[in-house]
Amino acid sequence: MNMQVLVVMGSKSDKPVGDKAMGVLKKLGIGCEMTVASAHRTPDIVEKLAKREDVGVFIAIAGLSAALPGCIAAQTLRPVIGVPVSGKVNMDSILSVVQMPPGIPVAAVGLDRGENAALLAAEILAISNPEIARNLAAYRRDMAARVMEDARNLED
Amino acid sequence: MNMQVLVVMGSKSDKPVGDKAMGVLKKLGIGCEMTVASAHRTPDIVEKLAKREDVGVFIAIAGLSAALPGCIAAQTLRPVIGVPVSGKVNMDSILSVVQMPPGIPVAAVGLDRGENAALLAAEILAISNPEIARNLAAYRRDMAARVMEDARNLED
Amino acid sequence: MNMQVLVVMGSKSDKPVGDKAMGVLKKLGIGCEMTVASAHRTPDIVEKLAKREDVGVFIAIAGLSAALPGCIAAQTLRPVIGVPVSGKVNMDSILSVVQMPPGIPVAAVGLDRGENAALLAAEILAISNPEIARNLAAYRRDMAARVMEDARNLED
Amino acid sequence: MNMQVLVVMGSKSDKPVGDKAMGVLKKLGIGCEMTVASAHRTPDIVEKLAKREDVGVFIAIAGLSAALPGCIAAQTLRPVIGVPVSGKVNMDSILSVVQMPPGIPVAAVGLDRGENAALLAAEILAISNPEIARNLAAYRRDMAARVMEDARNLED
Amino acid sequence: MNMQVLVVMGSKSDKPVGDKAMGVLKKLGIGCEMTVASAHRTPDIVEKLAKREDVGVFIAIAGLSAALPGCIAAQTLRPVIGVPVSGKVNMDSILSVVQMPPGIPVAAVGLDRGENAALLAAEILAISNPEIARNLAAYRRDMAARVMEDARNLED
Amino acid sequence: MNMQVLVVMGSKSDKPVGDKAMGVLKKLGIGCEMTVASAHRTPDIVEKLAKREDVGVFIAIAGLSAALPGCIAAQTLRPVIGVPVSGKVNMDSILSVVQMPPGIPVAAVGLDRGENAALLAAEILAISNPEIARNLAAYRRDMAARVMEDARNLED
Amino acid sequence: MNMQVLVVMGSKSDKPVGDKAMGVLKKLGIGCEMTVASAHRTPDIVEKLAKREDVGVFIAIAGLSAALPGCIAAQTLRPVIGVPVSGKVNMDSILSVVQMPPGIPVAAVGLDRGENAALLAAEILAISNPEIARNLAAYRRDMAARVMEDARNLED
Amino acid sequence: MNMQVLVVMGSKSDKPVGDKAMGVLKKLGIGCEMTVASAHRTPDIVEKLAKREDVGVFIAIAGLSAALPGCIAAQTLRPVIGVPVSGKVNMDSILSVVQMPPGIPVAAVGLDRGENAALLAAEILAISNPEIARNLAAYRRDMAARVMEDARNLED
Repeated sequence: MNMQVLVVMGSKSDKPVGDKAMGVLKKLGIGCEMTVASAHRTPDIVEKLAKREDVGVFIAIAGLSAALPGCIAAQTLRPVIGVPVSGKVNMDSILSVVQMPPGIPVAAVGLDRGENAALLAAEILAISNPEIARNLAAYRRDMAARVMEDARNLED
Repeated sequence: MNMQVLVVMGSKSDKPVGDKAMGVLKKLGIGCEMTVASAHRTPDIVEKLAKREDVGVFIAIAGLSAALPGCIAAQTLRPVIGVPVSGKVNMDSILSVVQMPPGIPVAAVGLDRGENAALLAAEILAISNPEIARNLAAYRRDMAARVMEDARNLED
Repeated sequence: MNMQVLVVMGSKSDKPVGDKAMGVLKKLGIGCEMTVASAHRTPDIVEKLAKREDVGVFIAIAGLSAALPGCIAAQTLRPVIGVPVSGKVNMDSILSVVQMPPGIPVAAVGLDRGENAALLAAEILAISNPEIARNLAAYRRDMAARVMEDARNLED
Repeated sequence: MNMQVLVVMGSKSDKPVGDKAMGVLKKLGIGCEMTVASAHRTPDIVEKLAKREDVGVFIAIAGLSAALPGCIAAQTLRPVIGVPVSGKVNMDSILSVVQMPPGIPVAAVGLDRGENAALLAAEILAISNPEIARNLAAYRRDMAARVMEDARNLED
Repeated sequence: MNMQVLVVMGSKSDKPVGDKAMGVLKKLGIGCEMTVASAHRTPDIVEKLAKREDVGVFIAIAGLSAALPGCIAAQTLRPVIGVPVSGKVNMDSILSVVQMPPGIPVAAVGLDRGENAALLAAEILAISNPEIARNLAAYRRDMAARVMEDARNLED
Repeated sequence: MNMQVLVVMGSKSDKPVGDKAMGVLKKLGIGCEMTVASAHRTPDIVEKLAKREDVGVFIAIAGLSAALPGCIAAQTLRPVIGVPVSGKVNMDSILSVVQMPPGIPVAAVGLDRGENAALLAAEILAISNPEIARNLAAYRRDMAARVMEDARNLED
Repeated sequence: MNMQVLVVMGSKSDKPVGDKAMGVLKKLGIGCEMTVASAHRTPDIVEKLAKREDVGVFIAIAGLSAALPGCIAAQTLRPVIGVPVSGKVNMDSILSVVQMPPGIPVAAVGLDRGENAALLAAEILAISNPEIARNLAAYRRDMAARVMEDARNLED
Repeated sequence: MNMQVLVVMGSKSDKPVGDKAMGVLKKLGIGCEMTVASAHRTPDIVEKLAKREDVGVFIAIAGLSAALPGCIAAQTLRPVIGVPVSGKVNMDSILSVVQMPPGIPVAAVGLDRGENAALLAAEILAISNPEIARNLAAYRRDMAARVMEDARNLED
């Protein structure tokens, strides 16, 4: 299985969010790796990762003044999905990921939403990959089925 | 040129943001259309649009309690880019677009950032389309050149 | 007892809020049912619920980018009461429920305020139902009596 | 035509929002009156208005620390719709209207959304009034038609 | 000792904040009572309390859409000190207490700051009461002494 | 007429808010002066003003990180009323004035509410000054009369 | 005069803020240059600027998701002063500049506060430069004198 | 080792943040002391500390309406680093420290970021102190090494 999605976390404390992303990516049969690199503490490594040729989609996970997604987006033409991580303020990471300046987009998902980052990466790759498209359709059917089961359990 | 990106605005008052998206899409040689449909006032039309087979990427633009991006995302497996539109509160549309529940991702870009939505759509399509990739690379070089020219003008 | 109020939760994790609503509805002698359906994960089911003819008032409970109340309101002419659910951000669900676009109203109550949603539904139904009106008046007298008892206990 | 909806504004400066409500109420054939009374400056008059027997639904419009909707709700069993009015802060009036304590509900609509308050009042009255129900259905069809016309104009 | 300050809490759950106020008032030798009354659930009792002739200063403590301080202020010419109480949102009670409309002032102190409400009441009464003034001066000297002792302990 | 209220503004740009306070104070027959002094730019002068023996109540008006009210309060036992001034952020001055630490209270009024600061000062002085009490009662009756006149004009 | 402070703006639209900084730096006799470079659009140029050996203090000015100050701070050991620039949201740039992760500090000043950034740079350089210290002391005396003159003018 | 940095906390409850600062300062070989003094409760002591001649850089740590950093900055020409401390609101201390008026800068670091305050102080002192510069460079290399080790551990 080829490498398709690189998950980069700004700190190892972001691992619970990264694990949610990796879990969904693997379930959907998408080649993926996860690493730690900091836009502020190891900018050279972030630059190297951003320039890797084998990556289809980046997922960048960071809290506080979450510069990591934008920092990767500045150095690649691949889509970069940004995941803000919760902390004492929350609006800091959300706005840092969402409010990118004109010219360098980041695809922001919700606070701590590693699983949605993975599903968005899958939707992107599925445009030209029918197998991922099939897996994604199945995933969504399962999810709807679980909601319907919750409804049945509740009504009983 | 085939249809690739469908731009949907929640109200005709969102047109300035939609126009920014359409301008960039056309400049990058991407097949695109723009229309108006409201998640709340015309849900049936939104559903029909969401199920169009010829769309590669959706761009959904909306203000206030901006349900349109999520409403489209709920009915397609294609990537949906959400653009919150500014108003009297701003945090309403930003949070409505970003804070999607687990399972249905939206790729949020910044407030009124129609151009970034178009660039993100281009990055997504460029994964399997070398011509868009070339156009995107040229676009980014031009942008960097303009910043450098601003610097030279300032220093003179 | 006829069906009068349908309580819909966006996720089974919203059950504590839904239970508060159901408790008050039953106490006031109002016919009610509770179910789970997601605007984003099961939009077809939400549509079916919204079009049920036997419902007088909807109570829709959701967190995050809380699209459920607006999504139901878009597909019915019955009053829809929206209850934002608390989480890591809180302003996301409050603003998503309150800031509806012109034309499609939702009646927002406070964060996690299932009991107030039920009381508002009762006030709505009481306009043409004297029995509910009597039960509601008694409920409010009891509530005032409890506050006065708290005052007496405190002063002793 | 009988009196059905009483629109109360906290200050005459709220008149543009009140006018939006009155315009929609009249269009839907609903008996209505509008007045000014302040929860803080004329509490006795607010109390008298709240106890009027001929009112089916109250619409209370106020800015800043918007106590008016809750103040009316505290003294009636009729449904009270609260409309927060925009100013320098906005979150003050929104949260004051939405975050009512347990036991006394207010039906909050969006910032400056006088028209939605009127539509919500209509939905409430329509439960037992078929004529208002027909008018409301026509209103909504017109609204959808206008969105579709916007779409056609845009595509031309 | 005559009655000088009446402490009113919107709910018995505000008692920890009320107790802080009562503790400081008693320490400063100020006549005081504490009770519970709700602007929304028992408006008549609030009105009676607001019109008591024997009160010099009111302290009103409330959370959420904290209408109590403004509701008392509307019905007395005595100074009313408002204490917002913390909860899931916090900005709701702070803004509801602070952002009073022109004409009816409330003296807002910080979130949960019962002790500061008491000290402010003491400063107000001390203008015409030398004994309270002396007690207040002593209180402040003690407080400064404690900070200095903290400094000494830290440096050791 | 003796000096009773000293109005201190942190910057001459706060004059419109100060003028509102002075206008009401003079109308109520209260001896008052207005000056400019900055907690950050002229702390020595603020200290001298805070220690003036002839002041009954201070009104301190400031924007941004509004330290002035707290800075005066730290150096007097007289009541200090703080008025936050609006700017680009607004929550900065509101929270700086309201969220005082335990031990040193400030009586916060609403954003730009110079008139309410003056009315609160009058309420404080009226406790021991029957003439101010009479003027204040007349002021409030006039205000209520104006609201009622607005109501009559509207109904005509 | 040697180069001491480099002012970097993220966009030429930030020039009014940059000009305020340059004006104060020149008045205080500090060698300075101003340029434009974007953390997102020209990351390579930002890196080169950050590694310039002749810079004593950096001032980095940026709006939105203001990554520029942190991006420079990541690549130098010199102090970096960050100036958030106002826009439609404001909390985005403030929090992006302030909430830096542990290990890489940025010295944040207030929104659009170019002059304070220059004064802070002067304070930093003045530690080892008596001439700047003298100029800074004179600047502050002038500023205090202006406040006192405002007070005199107001009192006349 | 000479005194170089004075750490002042507004309350002994800020000690965990102060300890982070002291730990880093000592590790970098910087002479430092820590004490407690309150802008509001012991303004005279704050004034004395601010005027100490032996201090190179101040670090001022405070929560709520955090006046301490600005209060020190008003009385010294040395750089003052402000650290907002977390509590129930957080935006209160952040905005109070960041939004200083023109003329008196404070160098704000992030919420509870005592370690970053120390590193910023070190960067400031390192301009004229090669030993601190070397220690700082080593500290940053270690930090980068730890991130890289986290990456290796994760990949294993």
